[in-house]
Amino acid sequence: MPATKLAVTLLAHTPEALSLIYAAFRQCYHDGYVADMWPRLLAGEIAREKQADFVARILASGHESPIEHVSFTFAVAGVSRALSHQLVRHRLASYSQQSQRYVDAAGFDYVLPPRIAAVPEAKARFEAAMAAAGEAYADVQAILQEHGRGAKANEDARFVLPNACETKVVVTMNCRSLLHFFELRCCMRAQWEIRAMAGRMLDLCKEALPVVFATAGARCERLGYCPEDARFSCGRYPIRDVNPNIPA
Amino acid sequence: MPATKLAVTLLAHTPEALSLIYAAFRQCYHDGYVADMWPRLLAGEIAREKQADFVARILASGHESPIEHVSFTFAVAGVSRALSHQLVRHRLASYSQQSQRYVDAAGFDYVLPPRIAAVPEAKARFEAAMAAAGEAYADVQAILQEHGRGAKANEDARFVLPNACETKVVVTMNCRSLLHFFELRCCMRAQWEIRAMAGRMLDLCKEALPVVFATAGARCERLGYCPEDARFSCGRYPIRDVNPNIPA
Amino acid sequence: MPATKLAVTLLAHTPEALSLIYAAFRQCYHDGYVADMWPRLLAGEIAREKQADFVARILASGHESPIEHVSFTFAVAGVSRALSHQLVRHRLASYSQQSQRYVDAAGFDYVLPPRIAAVPEAKARFEAAMAAAGEAYADVQAILQEHGRGAKANEDARFVLPNACETKVVVTMNCRSLLHFFELRCCMRAQWEIRAMAGRMLDLCKEALPVVFATAGARCERLGYCPEDARFSCGRYPIRDVNPNIPA
Amino acid sequence: MPATKLAVTLLAHTPEALSLIYAAFRQCYHDGYVADMWPRLLAGEIAREKQADFVARILASGHESPIEHVSFTFAVAGVSRALSHQLVRHRLASYSQQSQRYVDAAGFDYVLPPRIAAVPEAKARFEAAMAAAGEAYADVQAILQEHGRGAKANEDARFVLPNACETKVVVTMNCRSLLHFFELRCCMRAQWEIRAMAGRMLDLCKEALPVVFATAGARCERLGYCPEDARFSCGRYPIRDVNPNIPA
Repeated sequence: MPATKLAVTLLAHTPEALSLIYAAFRQCYHDGYVADMWPRLLAGEIAREKQADFVARILASGHESPIEHVSFTFAVAGVSRALSHQLVRHRLASYSQQSQRYVDAAGFDYVLPPRIAAVPEAKARFEAAMAAAGEAYADVQAILQEHGRGAKANEDARFVLPNACETKVVVTMNCRSLLHFFELRCCMRAQWEIRAMAGRMLDLCKEALPVVFATAGARCERLGYCPEDARFSCGRYPIRDVNPNIPA
Repeated sequence: MPATKLAVTLLAHTPEALSLIYAAFRQCYHDGYVADMWPRLLAGEIAREKQADFVARILASGHESPIEHVSFTFAVAGVSRALSHQLVRHRLASYSQQSQRYVDAAGFDYVLPPRIAAVPEAKARFEAAMAAAGEAYADVQAILQEHGRGAKANEDARFVLPNACETKVVVTMNCRSLLHFFELRCCMRAQWEIRAMAGRMLDLCKEALPVVFATAGARCERLGYCPEDARFSCGRYPIRDVNPNIPA
Repeated sequence: MPATKLAVTLLAHTPEALSLIYAAFRQCYHDGYVADMWPRLLAGEIAREKQADFVARILASGHESPIEHVSFTFAVAGVSRALSHQLVRHRLASYSQQSQRYVDAAGFDYVLPPRIAAVPEAKARFEAAMAAAGEAYADVQAILQEHGRGAKANEDARFVLPNACETKVVVTMNCRSLLHFFELRCCMRAQWEIRAMAGRMLDLCKEALPVVFATAGARCERLGYCPEDARFSCGRYPIRDVNPNIPA
Repeated sequence: MPATKLAVTLLAHTPEALSLIYAAFRQCYHDGYVADMWPRLLAGEIAREKQADFVARILASGHESPIEHVSFTFAVAGVSRALSHQLVRHRLASYSQQSQRYVDAAGFDYVLPPRIAAVPEAKARFEAAMAAAGEAYADVQAILQEHGRGAKANEDARFVLPNACETKVVVTMNCRSLLHFFELRCCMRAQWEIRAMAGRMLDLCKEALPVVFATAGARCERLGYCPEDARFSCGRYPIRDVNPNIPA
């Protein structure tokens, strides 16, 4: 039952992503059929720099729908059920999450929040709580099995498992949904754990498809100002000027 | 820290639901403008029985999109975070859930699974685990507060809270999404807790809008057979005859 | 075959909308169960002004999900198939549209674009084209019927119908989806016809639920600046200051 | 202005699709982290036949969510605006469609319905209507340009364009959404044009990912019976036995 560490792996993404986005954009404003242009795009007859410039310019103008054609699939481990409960609230995404009903959680790993790890007294209390939860899980599971609840013992015993309990999940989002996810979850107001995960996902996205993700991040990064209420702003960017049309 | 009980309350649903669905169906196949027909529908000039017959017949033929115009909003309490984590996986819905980051969970209520309640030894062990988790939460929270983590103390201390911890949520789904929800969650294979909640929601829906929900429920209720694999079927309905086109 | 006029009717919306949004917001940050508070909300024990202030304040901070619990259903007529093809691209919505496969379009009404109506020569040419399309539809329909294509005659003959052909549609969106719809479709860059429809929908929303819609409209209305590229901006609001983080 | 022909091209799909679906399924029921298994999957250490068997078995039991991780992107041309208006009603998908506001439609190609092509008299009338619509478009466009409506001339002139007018679109759907699309659009009750397009898409999917698509198609292909009302069934499969729970 050790403390675990965040792991984020990019399993797959739509291939030829830049050209696919370029082709989709072009299909909107172009007379020809992009399938005819496609082999030439793959062959590099239209320079990738030119494709990237075109895409960056149109994206900057707010026309985001063509980037939906490209999806990224991540495997994530070393995260808590507290995180996954927030994660799956993002509805424009697909999830395959490790089931606590079917997978035995005996000896589970757990996530140790850094602010707890930083206070020895808190850390000791937290670790004792994890050990106690592990024992309670094993005890309840064993009692239920003795009473013939075989297949259902895990399902019921898991009610004693803590939020800190590690989970693993495969998640797929398209680029537009990812941009929105990063806006919310890379913000300093987001919970530390999902912000850490979002940051790792963003790094992988930037490497794979810089034209879309180079300027991605919290909303402030894209807006140039902080859209949060002054009481909550982290101070990294200035609060937006008051819009006289919007009541304070 | 007592064990809590499921509560499901229908807060609101789209008014004049039957007539609205009837009007939407009619607009698809009718030359006129349903807004002109609307006052007569409300005045009962087209008998509600006739409206209901029309809707039932078209629904039975599989044309489900017009029932999307009607939504139901429920408040739910006395459910576990294990349940809510499953619930929010339904993406065609809207949720407002009590936040463990912001709401102090000291002295939390918890959900006691019936199969645990039925075994005195299991119940005692479970209750001890709840009490221990409650103490751990209070201790970690207090230590963090002493170390100046005021606003963040709840956010981090909640990592020790168990899945059994009570949550409360407001959930809205349209009728089509509800039918799908009931298909999955009223099935005997669904977890006991979410099945109980789905059953209560279904009762409220049947009362409010019988034309749509009278035949709703697990998939077997609508199909007349069980679509599950023989190993998992509850036996209430016969397994479907093997489709020779589908590999076993 | 006369030119037709835009008609937008609010058929229904979620009742007690303000209190429902207030209750959903409160459930997120409050220990109690909103269903217990609900009768007191409906009885006005918490003043509606207080509810509205609370909702406006939280909405302004960008926390939009609770307004999803409230939906609006409109009936729309006097709009073209050019409009409806744009409309149904909004995916977070439900539609019931008059079918050209099933409804006979003989003697169809049509939408006359104002910039065409303003030029007598263009108007005459346009009206002649509508009449010609109407005759072509009737002729193809008749020939197919003579050749025994009874049920399919409308389905095939409609291929000659123009984009201007009137359609009718019932559309439901929740408040969050509506805010997004208005951002895009109330903008001066939107096509004139869908902007006119969006404007009428917005007027009806403002009347029914001012706390959510008083500041709704094109993106500029909410931002206080125009987010479009300088080449496309209508000039009503200043272009946003360049964000040095975003490439031009 | 010739009649055009359907073209469907598979531009891209998620790579290593079988292994990705296998990995996602496994993550749900497996203690380990699928990212650790991933290199071995790609290296073929777990035979592809074994992966395919596992996926087929779980899919048959109705557990469809893991196939959402794989998406397909098609370019489509030679289809009418009548088709595209139906296509974009599928909301779990992404579209980039040629714009009639921005692309000049002078000399447009059109879709000739086969039942019209089969009747010489109907074909001649249809072709005359296409030519007349083409002339009307050119005339209205020219008049508006003369009157200084440069940028808006196409936008308004397109109101005279027929449904038959060719459009081109890039469309992305994930496998689960595709299965649903095929259920509806491969059915003999679907309109001939979208059924032809769906058939071509299905052929491409079967070739690329047989484990998911080998048994795909109209609902009857998967159910072994026809779920339609007897009046509408094409007769290819027997009507389902009446479920005594469902009112006729």
